[in-house]
Amino acid sequence: MSKIKYELIKNDNKNENVRLGKLITNHGTFDTPMFMPVGTLANVKTLMPEELKACGSAVVLSNTYHLWLRPGEDVIKKAGGLNKFMNYDGPTLTDSGGFQVFSLAKPKDITEEGVRFKSHIDGKELFLTPEKSIEIQNKLDSDIAMSFDECAPYPATRRYIENSMRRTIRWARRGKEAFNNPNQSLFGIVQGGEFEDLRRESALETVKMDFDGYSVGGTSVGEPKEVMYNMISYATKYLPKDKPRYLMGVGEPIDLLEGVSRGIDMFDCVLPTRLARHGNCFTRHGRINIKNAKYKEDFSPIEDDCDCYTCKNFSKAYVRHLVTAGEVNGGRLLSIHNIRFLIKEMEEIREAIKEDRFFEYKDEFIKKYENRR
Amino acid sequence: MSKIKYELIKNDNKNENVRLGKLITNHGTFDTPMFMPVGTLANVKTLMPEELKACGSAVVLSNTYHLWLRPGEDVIKKAGGLNKFMNYDGPTLTDSGGFQVFSLAKPKDITEEGVRFKSHIDGKELFLTPEKSIEIQNKLDSDIAMSFDECAPYPATRRYIENSMRRTIRWARRGKEAFNNPNQSLFGIVQGGEFEDLRRESALETVKMDFDGYSVGGTSVGEPKEVMYNMISYATKYLPKDKPRYLMGVGEPIDLLEGVSRGIDMFDCVLPTRLARHGNCFTRHGRINIKNAKYKEDFSPIEDDCDCYTCKNFSKAYVRHLVTAGEVNGGRLLSIHNIRFLIKEMEEIREAIKEDRFFEYKDEFIKKYENRR
Repeated sequence: MSKIKYELIKNDNKNENVRLGKLITNHGTFDTPMFMPVGTLANVKTLMPEELKACGSAVVLSNTYHLWLRPGEDVIKKAGGLNKFMNYDGPTLTDSGGFQVFSLAKPKDITEEGVRFKSHIDGKELFLTPEKSIEIQNKLDSDIAMSFDECAPYPATRRYIENSMRRTIRWARRGKEAFNNPNQSLFGIVQGGEFEDLRRESALETVKMDFDGYSVGGTSVGEPKEVMYNMISYATKYLPKDKPRYLMGVGEPIDLLEGVSRGIDMFDCVLPTRLARHGNCFTRHGRINIKNAKYKEDFSPIEDDCDCYTCKNFSKAYVRHLVTAGEVNGGRLLSIHNIRFLIKEMEEIREAIKEDRFFEYKDEFIKKYENRR
Repeated sequence: MSKIKYELIKNDNKNENVRLGKLITNHGTFDTPMFMPVGTLANVKTLMPEELKACGSAVVLSNTYHLWLRPGEDVIKKAGGLNKFMNYDGPTLTDSGGFQVFSLAKPKDITEEGVRFKSHIDGKELFLTPEKSIEIQNKLDSDIAMSFDECAPYPATRRYIENSMRRTIRWARRGKEAFNNPNQSLFGIVQGGEFEDLRRESALETVKMDFDGYSVGGTSVGEPKEVMYNMISYATKYLPKDKPRYLMGVGEPIDLLEGVSRGIDMFDCVLPTRLARHGNCFTRHGRINIKNAKYKEDFSPIEDDCDCYTCKNFSKAYVRHLVTAGEVNGGRLLSIHNIRFLIKEMEEIREAIKEDRFFEYKDEFIKKYENRR
């Protein structure tokens, strides 16, 4: 048991930002770029570990904030850690709780010490600090833990972002000092909003602390796509080439391509499972909603050439029936399809980088995806 | 493709009511007595066909009333029938809609022609007749269809039950005449409430029509257990030995034993999946609710010696966490356990009949089940 190791396999010869690599963890090795499904409460909604593996999923993310509240980190520690608790033998990553505090738990009071906020379950007052977030994650015993950060809103003033980013750096330092799990790795998070110089400052200061990997945070909070893509570029520019880079909370098929083209190795997002619960699914020709009446008697799969369990076994008409009738299996079948879609996209991206044709692949993918049938 | 065939293998030598047999269908053969999980809307809630098979489930029931409303029998016919629609290659049975009209769709107006009632989904007025029920089932193309009956309430006056039972006989005759699917079998349903002579009349008149099998209806509608057991005895006494007998809507572990001891071959019930959604699960020592705080740090399986997927892979603490946090996978894992519990019980019942020790098995099972730990 040891910390993770990142190995760079190669860069695309057209742009050295684009990287093919591998991440070696205590629970297996996976190639990057990689998309990670989200198992908020120590399970990916409606799916079992075997189904995730069948989708090609190599790593699962769980949410520290949610597990802190239920069932509590001590229960998971007593179970032998997150892997044993959820009976999943692959690599795991836990976030810091920072994003949930930002998105779920309002109103909040951010001080130097930490964040005071109310539980989204029962309104109970809670206080999360960098040390507490790390302590919880150390107990969860995921392969990769994240530093506690403030995920600042968009838009926000430069002054707000600057203060927030600098506090996040101080929090990262405190978390790193509190960190106490020799088998777990810790990532730092680059903040700084839309401001190039603040992203630079954040990246340089965070890298100085020598984390096991680096994340780009503060994206997917309402900013336009171009702003997000710039945020990524501003940050990855200053990140070391021998450490993995992780873009948090991004899962749109095109955003994955834009992330990879800016040097990102890992992505996570609730999008594939959240969309599924509302009847939405990815196709190579853009998103569709299976509830559309035109699928009522469409006995073909969601995608003819998709190799997922759903497409190999069930028709649009059947999935539509389950979703419109409110049957959980509808969302389950769409979750499988959507997760497989993103994982397959990543497989194709890796293949393309290997063959130095990532940008051709990207252009082709986007052209098709935006040209809905 | 042809109608079902029932083969009697043997009776228990202590009581010739108790039978071991096999049912040969167009989609495979299964041994009886057998418990059939319910897939109301052409899917067993939260489970896929492969999971049902892993539970040992040999046959699945679907609800005509629900499928009539959504997606409509014509969609399923166009898909190639229920099996193809839900991608399940095993035997299927559809009920007549009579029970749902009774339980879901109130107020209702029962006439000789049929039942006028309001949809439980949108309140739209609907009219179901014996002919319509059969027409829908012919299109669904299940292996076994049921005659349209009135599932009378309990308690009810003798006069009410008598009138209702005789009308159910007339409905059975009309349904049989309308029946038009050479690959499908049709069961008659014995009604007559708690009255021995009415059950006798119903059984004799129904048997005269020469159905492919017979069902005992009108149970599990609020009557005491002893009354239900009598209803079964009153009916099965007059049923032919060369046809299968099916007790509708019964799935309590002890009721299965009582049914078998009175000559029943097939059972169905939503109980295992419905209980699961509320955190309840069967154990050999009675039902437990996994939400109980005492399971919070109980890292043992629900039952140590259970061979289901849930017990082989997950702890009570994990299942409890999922259920209390409202995660669908909690109900899914409990559904698997509960279905496997009943199917395993039936396997043991068949083994016991084979060895002429059914009644010893029954006594032992009940003693343990009622003696909760």
